[in-house]
Amino acid sequence: MKSTKKILLSESEMPKQWYNILADMPVKPLPLLNPGTNKPLLPEEMEPLFAKELTIQEFSGKRWHDIPEEVLHYYKMYRPTPLVRAYSLEKMLDTPARIFFKNESVSPVGSHKLNTALPQAYYNKKQGIKHLTTETGAGQWGTAMSLACKYFGMDLTVFMVKHSYMTKPYRKVMMNIYGSKVYASPCDKTAYGREVLAKDPDCTGSLGMAISEAIEMAVTHEDTRYVLGSVLNHVLLHQTIIGLEAEKQMEMAGYFPDKVIGCFGGGSNFSGVSFPFLRHKLTEGRALEAIAAEPASCSRLTNGEFKYDFGDTAHLTPLIPMYTLGNDFMPEQIHAAGLRYHGGGQIVSQLKKDGLVSSCAVDQKEAFKAGVLFAGTEGIVPAPESNHAIAVAIREAIKAKESGKAETILFNLSGHGHLDLAAYEAMV
Amino acid sequence: MKSTKKILLSESEMPKQWYNILADMPVKPLPLLNPGTNKPLLPEEMEPLFAKELTIQEFSGKRWHDIPEEVLHYYKMYRPTPLVRAYSLEKMLDTPARIFFKNESVSPVGSHKLNTALPQAYYNKKQGIKHLTTETGAGQWGTAMSLACKYFGMDLTVFMVKHSYMTKPYRKVMMNIYGSKVYASPCDKTAYGREVLAKDPDCTGSLGMAISEAIEMAVTHEDTRYVLGSVLNHVLLHQTIIGLEAEKQMEMAGYFPDKVIGCFGGGSNFSGVSFPFLRHKLTEGRALEAIAAEPASCSRLTNGEFKYDFGDTAHLTPLIPMYTLGNDFMPEQIHAAGLRYHGGGQIVSQLKKDGLVSSCAVDQKEAFKAGVLFAGTEGIVPAPESNHAIAVAIREAIKAKESGKAETILFNLSGHGHLDLAAYEAMV
Repeated sequence: MKSTKKILLSESEMPKQWYNILADMPVKPLPLLNPGTNKPLLPEEMEPLFAKELTIQEFSGKRWHDIPEEVLHYYKMYRPTPLVRAYSLEKMLDTPARIFFKNESVSPVGSHKLNTALPQAYYNKKQGIKHLTTETGAGQWGTAMSLACKYFGMDLTVFMVKHSYMTKPYRKVMMNIYGSKVYASPCDKTAYGREVLAKDPDCTGSLGMAISEAIEMAVTHEDTRYVLGSVLNHVLLHQTIIGLEAEKQMEMAGYFPDKVIGCFGGGSNFSGVSFPFLRHKLTEGRALEAIAAEPASCSRLTNGEFKYDFGDTAHLTPLIPMYTLGNDFMPEQIHAAGLRYHGGGQIVSQLKKDGLVSSCAVDQKEAFKAGVLFAGTEGIVPAPESNHAIAVAIREAIKAKESGKAETILFNLSGHGHLDLAAYEAMV
Repeated sequence: MKSTKKILLSESEMPKQWYNILADMPVKPLPLLNPGTNKPLLPEEMEPLFAKELTIQEFSGKRWHDIPEEVLHYYKMYRPTPLVRAYSLEKMLDTPARIFFKNESVSPVGSHKLNTALPQAYYNKKQGIKHLTTETGAGQWGTAMSLACKYFGMDLTVFMVKHSYMTKPYRKVMMNIYGSKVYASPCDKTAYGREVLAKDPDCTGSLGMAISEAIEMAVTHEDTRYVLGSVLNHVLLHQTIIGLEAEKQMEMAGYFPDKVIGCFGGGSNFSGVSFPFLRHKLTEGRALEAIAAEPASCSRLTNGEFKYDFGDTAHLTPLIPMYTLGNDFMPEQIHAAGLRYHGGGQIVSQLKKDGLVSSCAVDQKEAFKAGVLFAGTEGIVPAPESNHAIAVAIREAIKAKESGKAETILFNLSGHGHLDLAAYEAMV
């Protein structure tokens, strides 16, 4: 029996900087546009909405960004996270492939979302902001932001997509335990929510709508800013802590991955695990395939169109150059609510366009089947979102078996499924 | 800001033996009795019910027991677990006390129960047993045993106390994901269950009843044995892995605890964390208070009577010399279902009688308040059971503040509360 499964870093080995892939992209993404003027958006135009430091990061071309001491302190509540060699899964699949996963489910909120929630709360706090607003789809992001705000002593209002609010009631309880206010979106707390409800009182919401409500509340209240859990460059930047740790850990294991896989919603999880490895592809030409695992019902990168589009339904965000299914696209009610988003974001879309990352679509039945197989071999019941990455890792491991190649596969286990068991009950 | 929070051991530093406190007890416990003859029970009398190796461990006076290679292999899926210095909690309480907790919630099933589920499945498998039966209160034990059986390729039937089955439906889903059959107890699958239901069709069950049903099914089916998640000596033995790791980790931190605290149901969690430290009290006379945190509604050690009593309601177990509230005691329906048990078990009861461990009762309101405080400072939402230990740790930290003593407090975070959020919703 193989004896070492977990590859651990000590707290002192935790990376002290985040990696900005913009610095190394051969083709820089097109700029965000101000929808009023159709001119490139300036950092200062984002300041009414976001903390200043975050807008600077959003537009930065600098390769490395120092992680503030206070953020490192809270990262140490759960980081560095383990890298695990999935020997039991390999054995079950009878594959020559080496399968590794980065276990972000050990975070106290159960997902990778805390990696960016902490710096976002910190930079806002530092600027003197007192209240924050945000939206949440599956509830993972809202939970992470709730804990981050609790740590930094700020208050938070969360607009939770109504469908998730109803089907995942315990996410709300967890946010309440951390002290946040949670509204089912669309709701009557915003003009946009009231407008939607007037047209369709039974509307169960979407991530795009919830974003619109959270933005509206932020810009219409004093000392209030908005925070977003994915899509934006500064969010992707913060999430690179995942891949930077994994890079050190893979080196300790003695392998460089042939395939790096992350599920793809707004892009933060996929970017977090893959960008630090992609750096070696971009700067040294190392062979590596980074695969975004999309839900079949919402596969922007795989089946969307590359164009300028809004990030939300009410057209309050800048115009983003990205693969999109259209900002009015109403995705099917899949259980992986965290992946239900119409757009691919600025950076990942450009990388996809240039053939530097790939994507594929996974049906949710295949995803849950993969999750159950993983639970029975590696023990952890994964989040429905993470199941998409596991499904693609399994596809690749089976391909490796067919071709007889001892490939090295790395995927990100973005979260656990303890609060998604109703979905398993329905699907298994 | 304090910089190191987690004290980690590498997989190679994981203890290779369990510790048996019986070897060091100044007064040995009275023997178990065969209720038919009133004579001391012999190991072979337990063999129709338990795997032979487990009955040997049950009666063993040997100080150290080797952990089998196969068990070590699966332990490494989640062990060694972190020891954490709770700096944020200390700061919030403004206490001079140093508070440490052992984080058993990182196990894939979310609690310490896997520590004994794995060896129990292993020894049964080794003996050629194909089917196992057990009961579960809160569902933590049933979940752990389900995963252990999945790993070792055995099948498992779980009798889940009906009240928990109804209030914690997702525990059942998790057991199903791992491949187990789960029945709400009392049920019509056993003669005893049918008898209870005939008298009271609305009976919501108790741990004692569920034990009776699981035992009946084991002894009336071929190639089938019963496994128990607490109370028995071999279970306590397996759980000492917690305290043995913590002992090394506390040494790395540079402190020996003044107080070691565990919540107390059947005793496995309390014994697991405290026995390896108690060894130094028993053999070297080191000062140390080991405190069992009982629920006020079911406080056997604190308010029970020391006498011979059955471990179950149908009188199928041996007679156990222990503090008990009576085997027909029907505990209040508290949210910490894992602590609802009438007896204190043989070893811990004897230690309590001899003044070597202490106990105290915690009201569930105080417990949940402690849990929410802990979640807001250390991030993790604890299991309702673990909240009892946290409440006592907080009491001790406040006492330390009042007396100005920089005491060292260690408690076991036996599990997380992700599947207990309905309880938080009701209590917070």
